[in-house]
Amino acid sequence: MKPAPIDHNTVREMLRTATPDRVLRFIGQRHPADIALLFKGLEPPEVRQLFDILFSARRADKALKELPPELLPDILALIDDDKLSRMIVRADPDDAVTFIDSLPEERRERIIALLDPERRAEVRELISYPEGSVGRIMTTDFMTFLPSTTAQGAIDKIRERGELETFFYLYVVDEAGKLVGVVPLRNLVVAPPNRSLGDMMIADPIKANVMMDQEEAARLVSKYELLALPIVDESGRLEGIITVDDVIDIIDKEATEDMYKMAGLAEEDRVFTPVSRSVKMRLPWTILNLMTATLAASVVGLFEGTLHEIIALVTFMPVIAGVGGNGATQTATVIIRAIALGELEFSSAWKAVVKQVLVNICIALAAGGVIAVAAFLWKGNPYLGLVLASAMILNLGLVAGFSGAVIPLVLKALKFDPAMGAGIIVTGLTDAFGFLSFLGLATLFRGYLS
Amino acid sequence: MKPAPIDHNTVREMLRTATPDRVLRFIGQRHPADIALLFKGLEPPEVRQLFDILFSARRADKALKELPPELLPDILALIDDDKLSRMIVRADPDDAVTFIDSLPEERRERIIALLDPERRAEVRELISYPEGSVGRIMTTDFMTFLPSTTAQGAIDKIRERGELETFFYLYVVDEAGKLVGVVPLRNLVVAPPNRSLGDMMIADPIKANVMMDQEEAARLVSKYELLALPIVDESGRLEGIITVDDVIDIIDKEATEDMYKMAGLAEEDRVFTPVSRSVKMRLPWTILNLMTATLAASVVGLFEGTLHEIIALVTFMPVIAGVGGNGATQTATVIIRAIALGELEFSSAWKAVVKQVLVNICIALAAGGVIAVAAFLWKGNPYLGLVLASAMILNLGLVAGFSGAVIPLVLKALKFDPAMGAGIIVTGLTDAFGFLSFLGLATLFRGYLS
Repeated sequence: MKPAPIDHNTVREMLRTATPDRVLRFIGQRHPADIALLFKGLEPPEVRQLFDILFSARRADKALKELPPELLPDILALIDDDKLSRMIVRADPDDAVTFIDSLPEERRERIIALLDPERRAEVRELISYPEGSVGRIMTTDFMTFLPSTTAQGAIDKIRERGELETFFYLYVVDEAGKLVGVVPLRNLVVAPPNRSLGDMMIADPIKANVMMDQEEAARLVSKYELLALPIVDESGRLEGIITVDDVIDIIDKEATEDMYKMAGLAEEDRVFTPVSRSVKMRLPWTILNLMTATLAASVVGLFEGTLHEIIALVTFMPVIAGVGGNGATQTATVIIRAIALGELEFSSAWKAVVKQVLVNICIALAAGGVIAVAAFLWKGNPYLGLVLASAMILNLGLVAGFSGAVIPLVLKALKFDPAMGAGIIVTGLTDAFGFLSFLGLATLFRGYLS
Repeated sequence: MKPAPIDHNTVREMLRTATPDRVLRFIGQRHPADIALLFKGLEPPEVRQLFDILFSARRADKALKELPPELLPDILALIDDDKLSRMIVRADPDDAVTFIDSLPEERRERIIALLDPERRAEVRELISYPEGSVGRIMTTDFMTFLPSTTAQGAIDKIRERGELETFFYLYVVDEAGKLVGVVPLRNLVVAPPNRSLGDMMIADPIKANVMMDQEEAARLVSKYELLALPIVDESGRLEGIITVDDVIDIIDKEATEDMYKMAGLAEEDRVFTPVSRSVKMRLPWTILNLMTATLAASVVGLFEGTLHEIIALVTFMPVIAGVGGNGATQTATVIIRAIALGELEFSSAWKAVVKQVLVNICIALAAGGVIAVAAFLWKGNPYLGLVLASAMILNLGLVAGFSGAVIPLVLKALKFDPAMGAGIIVTGLTDAFGFLSFLGLATLFRGYLS
């Protein structure tokens, strides 16, 4: 069904022995996404060689833009300034920005200076938009038409222009360049030749401001099932478009980010990132984790007296902490995902918090009951069960439910990522509070427990 | 930029007081996705009323298909069989299946029996494909052309047929219905009227078998930046298509599933799912969690003697368990995400496992060093630090790195979801093994610790 992968070892063998032309013929008319995969696992000289072959066939930009974002910087680092700048001049404007963005700060300026003036101005404009805005990733390669253009006139203009990267809608603008409507390509196909675009356009189409957050724009495309979203400036002038394939990339990236941030991972920490870089990126989170664990440890330290007196208590500590941590993680996951999918507004957030606390209280009642009965059967002391069940309700019901729901919402309100370190923070909190409630109650009632 | 939301309270007020026509005028030409949002938070009689208004305007199917999957069953339950079956007859084939799939088993058969024979056969065919396969969600509403059709002939045929749900490619089939090529709509627009589709088609296009997993098909569309993917049967006959908006839904659903399964959540457990249903869905996971926590607890129970002798050890238990659990969760997250994005094949999986173990060992060395120094400064005993650091390296370095990487891969190999309960399982394992290594080493060296 799907194209068979190009054999990696054959390509390496050919890079050693065959002429560039033969390598190119072997790669053939394969999709750039398949060609990009070839760069994985090549040695630096082989990367340069493969790049040169693609570059001379003018196919390097299309292939490199398909690379996973964590691999692109390493490949670009192997290519000299001259070739890199020439590739950037030939690339689509949005891909040009992707390449520039993947360069280290000091090289970025050097490469921009090497571009021809037109491309330089384009790149400078796009990278002037903040990271995370749609302006930063939109393509400026689109065609506009006046409302008076006829269907036949539009077809002639498209034919003249030739291939465009992506082309699903005709954008209709007024004399000042302000977007006034769109005509889906399929409507153009069936339109009478003399009909004007102004007559058949969808007026006042869904659009986004250049400064809109990428994720918000992606949600617009997804909600309204669009193929492309026009991007306008403050005055309504059409500045660029983002297409549905960009949107898929944004959605994938967003989901990775949320899962990663929950676990305390940096986005670049991918499955084949070098060990040293992964370690460097995980260390700060490990330190945060050591700090939250130390909080839990100091709570335990407070109760050494009680524990020494009734050593059996120590056995139940992992249960209180584990179940509380899991409940908090579940709650945080539901809230974080609802925020990402645009299902949760601040106005109705309190309802969500109340609901999560209720769910956790019900589960705490059930789990507390089970553990109370188990403790009674095992240790023969009914009070131990009561203390365990009460601690479970306080920790899993109240602390886990409340912190799991509120922490992501507060982070979001403070304009941080709602998932940031959520897993580490809520499990740290429920560890600490779980020990506090369990050992605190046990200390109060120690007369009944030993 | 985006359309202002329709005011919810105004609609409720109008449902009470205004004529159906006025409500319909108020909702106006709004997008079905916006109309769907109105159903949220309505009382059952209001739901029926709004449905009836949309139904009589033949807009009910388009609106309901935009509902989040966890809300659809509740709305459909309020609609009587007769209207529901008439709506399903009018709906696009893939939406018809969505509605049927949202019904309880016993009602499903009743509704299918009420459909007209043609639609009944269509629905029966689509629901005969397994859940999770592309066959199950494809639309059968597409147009085919013979290779000999001219560009002008194709345009005439499209004009005759009128509006299709989605229409980006012309599918070229042979006399037996076998897919032989596709023509992107934009190429048709600029083609000379007499040119045949056979001449301009992309031969042997990327396609998927009806039984292909939905996620795999979504990755094909995303990788090759397609707008629609043709779905064929064993003999290559074109059976349906899936479009890029389906793909976005699949990708969203997949990401939710992975995050949810990691935390031990059922997919239907959304932010506004009723409390009783959320509790019911979380309980089995809580029981699994109680079991893993009991494993950790029984390990602790083995060492009550040592703990009683050196009560200070208890303070460090949360640190060993917490840091181990977090490391394992990080590792599992990286692996699960790489599997989902198609970045990790079984053939190279051992490299990923080795890498993750190395990363965790490095982090364990650093964290173990910190905790050893801290323990020495605090308790004045260098051996305690050594025991802590060794336990950290064994638990975080080996167990967390290995289990976090291997468990998702094993689940995947066994055709389970790689994320299934991963968070609960790996934190349970690292709790238990963390206590075993820490308290075990402490017992061995207890002469030096007290």
